[in-house]
Amino acid sequence: MTQGITKLLVANRGEIAVRIIRAAQELGIPTVAACSEADLDSQAARMADEVHLLGPARADKSYLNVEALLGALKATGANAVHPGYGFLSENADFAEAVQAAGAIFVGPSPQTIRRMGDKAEARRTAQAAGVPVVPGSPGELFDVEAALAAAEHVGFPLLIKASAGGGGRGIRLAESPAQLREEFPRSQREAQAAFGNGAVYLERFISRARHIEVQVLGDGKHAVHLFERECSLQRRRQKIFEEAPSPALDPQQRETLCASAVRLTESLGYQGAGTLEYLYDDASGEFFFIEMNTRIQVEHPVSELITGIDLVQAMLRIAGGEPLGLRQSDIRLNGAALQMRLNAEDPARDFFPSPGLVEALSWPHGPGVRVDSHLYEGYRVPPYYDSLLAKLIVHGGDRAQALARARVAVAQTRLSGMATTLGLHAELLEQPWLHDADFHTGTLETWLAARRSGGAA
Amino acid sequence: MTQGITKLLVANRGEIAVRIIRAAQELGIPTVAACSEADLDSQAARMADEVHLLGPARADKSYLNVEALLGALKATGANAVHPGYGFLSENADFAEAVQAAGAIFVGPSPQTIRRMGDKAEARRTAQAAGVPVVPGSPGELFDVEAALAAAEHVGFPLLIKASAGGGGRGIRLAESPAQLREEFPRSQREAQAAFGNGAVYLERFISRARHIEVQVLGDGKHAVHLFERECSLQRRRQKIFEEAPSPALDPQQRETLCASAVRLTESLGYQGAGTLEYLYDDASGEFFFIEMNTRIQVEHPVSELITGIDLVQAMLRIAGGEPLGLRQSDIRLNGAALQMRLNAEDPARDFFPSPGLVEALSWPHGPGVRVDSHLYEGYRVPPYYDSLLAKLIVHGGDRAQALARARVAVAQTRLSGMATTLGLHAELLEQPWLHDADFHTGTLETWLAARRSGGAA
Repeated sequence: MTQGITKLLVANRGEIAVRIIRAAQELGIPTVAACSEADLDSQAARMADEVHLLGPARADKSYLNVEALLGALKATGANAVHPGYGFLSENADFAEAVQAAGAIFVGPSPQTIRRMGDKAEARRTAQAAGVPVVPGSPGELFDVEAALAAAEHVGFPLLIKASAGGGGRGIRLAESPAQLREEFPRSQREAQAAFGNGAVYLERFISRARHIEVQVLGDGKHAVHLFERECSLQRRRQKIFEEAPSPALDPQQRETLCASAVRLTESLGYQGAGTLEYLYDDASGEFFFIEMNTRIQVEHPVSELITGIDLVQAMLRIAGGEPLGLRQSDIRLNGAALQMRLNAEDPARDFFPSPGLVEALSWPHGPGVRVDSHLYEGYRVPPYYDSLLAKLIVHGGDRAQALARARVAVAQTRLSGMATTLGLHAELLEQPWLHDADFHTGTLETWLAARRSGGAA
Repeated sequence: MTQGITKLLVANRGEIAVRIIRAAQELGIPTVAACSEADLDSQAARMADEVHLLGPARADKSYLNVEALLGALKATGANAVHPGYGFLSENADFAEAVQAAGAIFVGPSPQTIRRMGDKAEARRTAQAAGVPVVPGSPGELFDVEAALAAAEHVGFPLLIKASAGGGGRGIRLAESPAQLREEFPRSQREAQAAFGNGAVYLERFISRARHIEVQVLGDGKHAVHLFERECSLQRRRQKIFEEAPSPALDPQQRETLCASAVRLTESLGYQGAGTLEYLYDDASGEFFFIEMNTRIQVEHPVSELITGIDLVQAMLRIAGGEPLGLRQSDIRLNGAALQMRLNAEDPARDFFPSPGLVEALSWPHGPGVRVDSHLYEGYRVPPYYDSLLAKLIVHGGDRAQALARARVAVAQTRLSGMATTLGLHAELLEQPWLHDADFHTGTLETWLAARRSGGAA
C-alpha cells in the first residue's frame, strides 16, 4: 500500500519492535527484525518476515551499532528503517547515514532531528514560532561564571540541563548560586559522559508543574495535533502512568496549547510523528515548551485510543511519500485513555531490575483493553536492555470509566516469573489523588516515599 | 455506581458471562456466576465474586431452569439478573418471575419482550410506527388453506416463519403454492417442537438482500441508535462475520434507516439494549423491518468499537434506574469494526462441533484488537452448549484498515486442541468480494459450496 517502502528494517527491540512489525504487516510491507544475539528468540524475531543478526547483546555492538545496521540494510535489501524510540531514534548522524545509503529513515529529516536535539536551539525555534518557553539561559553555557550571570535572569530554583540531553540524564537542580557553582561541573561531566557533548543550559524550575505533551503528525507541508497527553506521574523522571487527554485542561486551554504545538511543528516543515513536551502550571494556567522528541514515544497508544489514528502506520505512510491525508477537523477527541507501564522492576527493592523467565502469562482482554507487549510464555527477558515488559492501555467513554477499566484489567493480568510493577499500579489506581487528577511531577515520588515509610501519601 | 443493582446474578455462560462480569466489575457491582455442573471451572466462575450451582450440565436443568435461577437469586441475595443472549434472555415469563421475586431483570419489560417476541405482533407494531416491513401475511396462520390465500398477496418466493421464532429455526422456503402446501405443516411441526407454539406466518423472500440491523438503547422515555451492523455473512442463518457500519449504506440511507429504528423503539417505551433487524435491498435501496431482538447480541462489540459506548454497562445502568444520559448528537460514528466468530467447529467436516481441551492459546493484541472470550489454557470446552469460543474483533480508521488488521490478528491467533473456524476466517479475509463488500445473505453459503467442490466462488 505504501509504495515508497518495499521492505522495512526494524532497528529496535521489545514491544516497540512488535508494534512496528504489526503496523507494517497491516500495510502489507515485509519486515526484517534486526536483532542482537540476545533477541534471536524474541517476539519480534518470531513475527518478522526475516531476521538479521546485528551482533552481540551489548547495545553498542548491536542496536547502537550504525555500521551493523547499514550492513543489515544492504544484506536484506530493505529500503527503509524504523528506529522506534531510544537507541538511534534521535541520532541525526544515523538518519543521515541511512539516507546516504539510499534508504528511507522513518522520521523527520536529519536537519530537524539535529535542530530539535540541540535543546538550546529548540528553545530558540519555539520562541520564533511564538511558543512560550520556560525562562532560561539564552544559549549553551560552557563555564560556571557565565552560568552564574545567566542565573540572575533565569531565577532560582533552576535546572541545569544537557543541551544534547533526553531521558532525564544530565539534569541537576540548583536552588542557590552556591549550589549552582557546585552542580554545574557535575552536570557538564554527566552530559559529556552520556551524550559526548558537555554543553549545558539553565532553565527555571517550576516546582508544582504538570508534564503535558502534545502529539503531532506532519508530512513536511502540513501538520496536525492528536491532542495532549498528561505524563506527570514520574519516578526519577521516568514516566510510569500516562493518560490522554490531560484532566487539567479545559477545552480552551487545550486548543491554545495544541495550536502552539502545530505552529511550531509547521515552522519546522516537520515530517513524521513527534511530541512537544510542555510544563503546565495549574495555578496560573501558563504552559512552557521544554523540548521536542522527534520520534514515536512509549506512551503513544493513549493518543491513538482517543483519536482512532494509528500513529505508527501514519509514520510509515508519510515516510513512504504519502501526504498526511488528515485535516485537523477530521481528528476528534473521543473519551479517555490510560497507560500503565509494566516493568521488570521490584518496587519493594527500590525498583531494582528483575529480568527473568516468563513462567505464566495471561493478559486482560475485552472492551476498551489494549496490551502492547513482546512477552510470551517461556520467554526469558534478557538483562541487557530497558525493563519495559508491557503497556496495559485502557480506553473509556470518560476518565472514570477508563479508571474503572484499568482496575479490572490490572486485576486480570497474570505474569509470574519475575517481580514487576503490576502490584504498584493496582495500588496507585486506588489513590484518591489519582482519581481527582490532583498531581504534579513530584507527586508520585512523594507517594512512593510515604509508602516506603509506611505512612499515607 | 449503579445504586439500583447491589449484586448481579449472571444467568448465562461462555464469553457473554465473562463480558457481563467484566462490565459489572467496572461499575463496582458484585457478581454471582450461576453455573451448571459443567461450568464450575469456567472463566466466568473464576472471575465472579461468587459461584452458584444451578444444576446438571443439560441446559434445561440449568440455564433454562427458571426455578433454579429464582433459587439462585434467593440464595445469593442478588437483586438483579442479566440474562445475556440465548437461553432465557427473551423469555417474558422468566422476566416476569424475576420481577415477581422482587429483583431487576436487565432488559425491557416482560410486556415488551412478549410483544416483540410475537413476530406477527412485532410487524404490526413496526407498521404502526411507520417502519416498512417485508410484505407478509397480516397475522398468524394455523392452516394451510389460509396460508395459500395469504400467499396471493405476499407473492412467491416466500418464507414460512415461526411466530415465536428466532435463531433461524422453523423457517422454510416456498417458491410455489405446491411447495407451500408441502412445507407449511413441516414448519408448523418445527415451530411447535422448538418453541412450544405452532403458529407461523408468511413473509416475502427477498433473494439478494443484505441483513442489516440497528443497535438501539432506551431508558423507557428516550431512545438512541448506535448505527447499524452488517451481518449478511451467514451459514444456515448463523452469522459468522459481522461489521459496523454497513459498507452498503450512504450517510442518507443510514440516517433514514437508523431514524426508523429509533422511532419504533421509542413507540415501545423501550428500556435497555435492543436490535432491530432489517433486510436491505441493494438494488432498490429499500429496507424492511423483520424483527426485534430484545437483548444484547453476540455481535454487539462492533457497535461498541465504532461509538465508544459500552453497551453492557449501559444496560446495567439503565436497569439500575439511571437515565440514558446520551443524546443522539453525542454518538459519533468512528471508523469501522469487524467481528470474526471463532467456533469449535470443523469446516472440513461440514462444521461439525469439535469441543476439546484448550492445549495452547495465544490471542492477538495491540492497536485496534479486541478479544471477547472465556477460554484459558487447560480449559476443556464442554460439549453441551453452543460452539462459540471467542470473538476476534478489530477496529480501524476505515474498513480497509480494519480488514488489514483482521488479517494480522487472525494470523497471530494460536489455539490448539480442537478444530476451529480460524482458518476459514483467514481464507475469507482474502476474498475479493469481501473486500469489495459485494455480498448478500446467500453469498457465504455459495462460497462455502464452491470451496468444498474445489472450485472458485
